[in-house]
Amino acid sequence: MTKHSKPLILVTNDDGISAPGLRALIAVMSEIGEVIVVAPDAPQSATGHGITINDTLYLNKISKDGDLITEYSCSGTPVDCVKFAVSEILKRKPDLCVSGVNHGSNSSINVIYSGTMSAAVEAGIEGIQAIGFSLLDFDWNANFEDIKPFIKKITLEVLENKLPEGVVLNVNFPKLKEKDIQGIKICRQAKAIWMEKFDKRKTPHGRDYYWLTGEFVNQDHGEDTDEWALKNGYISVVPVQFDMTAHHATQQLNTWNWNE
Amino acid sequence: MTKHSKPLILVTNDDGISAPGLRALIAVMSEIGEVIVVAPDAPQSATGHGITINDTLYLNKISKDGDLITEYSCSGTPVDCVKFAVSEILKRKPDLCVSGVNHGSNSSINVIYSGTMSAAVEAGIEGIQAIGFSLLDFDWNANFEDIKPFIKKITLEVLENKLPEGVVLNVNFPKLKEKDIQGIKICRQAKAIWMEKFDKRKTPHGRDYYWLTGEFVNQDHGEDTDEWALKNGYISVVPVQFDMTAHHATQQLNTWNWNE
Repeated sequence: MTKHSKPLILVTNDDGISAPGLRALIAVMSEIGEVIVVAPDAPQSATGHGITINDTLYLNKISKDGDLITEYSCSGTPVDCVKFAVSEILKRKPDLCVSGVNHGSNSSINVIYSGTMSAAVEAGIEGIQAIGFSLLDFDWNANFEDIKPFIKKITLEVLENKLPEGVVLNVNFPKLKEKDIQGIKICRQAKAIWMEKFDKRKTPHGRDYYWLTGEFVNQDHGEDTDEWALKNGYISVVPVQFDMTAHHATQQLNTWNWNE
Repeated sequence: MTKHSKPLILVTNDDGISAPGLRALIAVMSEIGEVIVVAPDAPQSATGHGITINDTLYLNKISKDGDLITEYSCSGTPVDCVKFAVSEILKRKPDLCVSGVNHGSNSSINVIYSGTMSAAVEAGIEGIQAIGFSLLDFDWNANFEDIKPFIKKITLEVLENKLPEGVVLNVNFPKLKEKDIQGIKICRQAKAIWMEKFDKRKTPHGRDYYWLTGEFVNQDHGEDTDEWALKNGYISVVPVQFDMTAHHATQQLNTWNWNE
């Protein structure tokens, strides 16, 4: 940022280029820095850290010359969007990548399925500071106005203090009015699972097919978790890493008879 | 396993139901337990932890009544396959889930893009012991014979000793003859990145499109990494967790001015 007065901010999401959550995020980021948008051309929820290697990719410039904000849509996943931005579009590494605002929660185990968070994680892998934002409201017309001041506050904190290397933030907002939000809490990912139910149906032609549905089950009563924070009116901030090594298990595994 | 003489083993992969790597894994697992296969009906490499929520899913029973091994193919991702197996197909929780053998490496940062490893991680989330196996050979006709004894050894160790809760194994095999393999090493995930290159082409109709390609860059000289082990002729075994919280960063983040 030394040579540039304003930070360069890459904005992406997984709900697609036309999502109101993305528009809210662009609005806040425009108050902070120079904004460039590279987002999927269609919804890409729950694509996790998928990338497109067995199919072609298309990139479309949406904005016109002279527009205040440069926008691209991409036919791939959120992770593809970050890769495109860094390798093909941007002339320098952005100072920050923000993803979202997701329509729906990415707390606890959802972080691993989330396209929103995978985009932030991909930016982190590429050495870019990154934050994923999600609102606990699946509605396309969810109210993002009440969380805008907090998005700005969190973003400015990150730009000022700098995240530790290899760490990105997973920020979730409760569905509350601004005045009812209790504050911001640093949390850990709650232990939770999805109990799947496959909704079995028949095509008009008589073939069985399924929809994946499920029920979220929080198995964690800890008051230091994101689930607890959100349930109690706080904004949850979980530091997320992409070194997936279970370092604590190494010692135990080394007692096994691997080479006998 | 108390009431059953043989362990129930779920086999899946990301290269699809017809991949030779899957056939090799089925062959080894058949020597150890009762095997059920639920694998994608087409290649699903690099789908990460994606699941199918915006599209229909199809499940096809491939095996016939009386066949020794029951096999299903599924139109979804590797993670969808595990969810289908656990929720729709299996009458009891399997004792083990194995995924692979992947045609190509899933060491270091590849773990996060890998459909093979995401299937193993999904099983881990559902409380099932799980191992992902990958061979450092992308060839469809790769030689899996030399690694079969090691696959059996590793699987038996896991069944006997039991993995710690919340931990699955990421096993990668060097492309070597059995006699040249130096042994099995418990490792950590090496710090590495992909330097992307987008291969830009034109459709026959004149529209620009891209293929995502890239070069793997190991940035980690540690001799405790999976990259080091593989380069030196060892089989790498990395314990992998799905609590993505960067616990080490919590203290530092709590010194920031979040609520002022």
